[in-house]
Amino acid sequence: MTTEATGAGVTEQALTSLRGTTDPRLRELLTGLVRHLHDFARETRLTQEEWERAIAFLTATGQACTDTRQEFILLSDVLGLSMLVETVNGHRAPGATESTVLGPFHMTESPVRALGDDIDLVGGGEPCVVSGRVLSEDGTPLPGALVDVWQADDKGFYDVQQPGAQPAGNGRGLFTAGTEGRFWFRTCVPAPYPIPTDGPVGGLLRATGRHPYRPAHIHFIATAEGHTPVTTHIFVAGGDYLDSDAVFAVKESLVQDFAETDDPSLAREFGVPNPLRHARFDLVLERAS
Amino acid sequence: MTTEATGAGVTEQALTSLRGTTDPRLRELLTGLVRHLHDFARETRLTQEEWERAIAFLTATGQACTDTRQEFILLSDVLGLSMLVETVNGHRAPGATESTVLGPFHMTESPVRALGDDIDLVGGGEPCVVSGRVLSEDGTPLPGALVDVWQADDKGFYDVQQPGAQPAGNGRGLFTAGTEGRFWFRTCVPAPYPIPTDGPVGGLLRATGRHPYRPAHIHFIATAEGHTPVTTHIFVAGGDYLDSDAVFAVKESLVQDFAETDDPSLAREFGVPNPLRHARFDLVLERAS
Repeated sequence: MTTEATGAGVTEQALTSLRGTTDPRLRELLTGLVRHLHDFARETRLTQEEWERAIAFLTATGQACTDTRQEFILLSDVLGLSMLVETVNGHRAPGATESTVLGPFHMTESPVRALGDDIDLVGGGEPCVVSGRVLSEDGTPLPGALVDVWQADDKGFYDVQQPGAQPAGNGRGLFTAGTEGRFWFRTCVPAPYPIPTDGPVGGLLRATGRHPYRPAHIHFIATAEGHTPVTTHIFVAGGDYLDSDAVFAVKESLVQDFAETDDPSLAREFGVPNPLRHARFDLVLERAS
Repeated sequence: MTTEATGAGVTEQALTSLRGTTDPRLRELLTGLVRHLHDFARETRLTQEEWERAIAFLTATGQACTDTRQEFILLSDVLGLSMLVETVNGHRAPGATESTVLGPFHMTESPVRALGDDIDLVGGGEPCVVSGRVLSEDGTPLPGALVDVWQADDKGFYDVQQPGAQPAGNGRGLFTAGTEGRFWFRTCVPAPYPIPTDGPVGGLLRATGRHPYRPAHIHFIATAEGHTPVTTHIFVAGGDYLDSDAVFAVKESLVQDFAETDDPSLAREFGVPNPLRHARFDLVLERAS
């Protein structure tokens, strides 16, 4: 084929137009983007009609975003891009807690709560206690570390998805680790849930014959001075969809027992009925270099 | 690097998830998209912060779209993607009129007009006449062919950009070719103009040190029974920016003289003062296979 027929001339012009980019990293990113975008269109021989559908899809995705919904993060999630970026950047010291995707629902500030508080402001789900320690990679406790937690309720919805039905801050809490880096809070056992399917991303999942479910999980961001923050989840062991998470976010090390524990003194300590469901999970942070 | 560190495992999972796509062409497109998107992020080692900026940029691009503005088409245009898709699909029989990009301003229906009508409803620019014939590739005239025309005014704005200041349909017309496939209309000589720079795409142009100008042009879509429609422009010969069009849409064969013509009988025929600016341009359509 001639240069004209493959569009190589257009690609060359587009790449040349980026040469004046002052920021060298932006130039590198845009150059890579143009190369891959053009190669994609050239290799698939993208038609005018398909291009029009893609434009319409991206436009609808942008317009589905609101203060409480991030459809572009959802799109990145279901294409595996979010998890890939996490993985490429998520190298950690051996033993440090592995990261996973942020997801589209960390969009409001979590309310500051005291250790032991119940983040399930509504009730009705199966109560449980989550406890652990924030540690440095060598095992040194990190008292004063911040532990930001958010989860869906027992019906599978985040507070921001149901502004009428759930109080703001339901399922969310910002905790400060105590002595020995310990944190603990009460909540309900999370349930698997479908990501929102009433927008463009839902249409994509239907067209690809994929289910929209995520296995049950609780989100964490742990931050401590002198350490690299970690964004992660814990997943409920034995639950559904652990091997087919709609957003590819499961890592084996993040799957945790939420075991029923018959331990009256523990129940008294946490102020919950015995027996109790209890997940123990340490957040181990890498020292910042 | 291990599979874990390069994210090859995530890419494999994302590709596997597309296997249930019923439509084989959609499966092919999504597979190509995931491969290129992941390769892009892997090769550039896209950081979490850069990913967040990209999400914010795409969201803002979607939210800048309205009934009269298409920021995603503009983005595709300035990245050269629109012109590439045109080029890959635009193979034409030798002698057929070459295509170029649709652009973001063909968003309202052009008003039906009679041959000879003036599409410049406001006046003030330099008047000119555009005339030509719609022909089949073998030279057979195509009377009854539709010629859809749109252009910016002499200040460089389309009607939809200035709903208060310009009457709807200014600079637009849908003409039906007459005997021997002839079409002709009056307008003002188009001027170069900047694409809209007050949105996310404007920010991209500034960051890359690019000017936002397009060389002066008039848009056409010609349609005739039994023929492949052509979407194209004519560009004003000798004008600025012909070698640095912000959207890479110039093809040599589309650059046309808008010559000053001293021809009293022609002026009388078109009902305009002599001398007149006159562009002659045939639209040659390929027979549909």
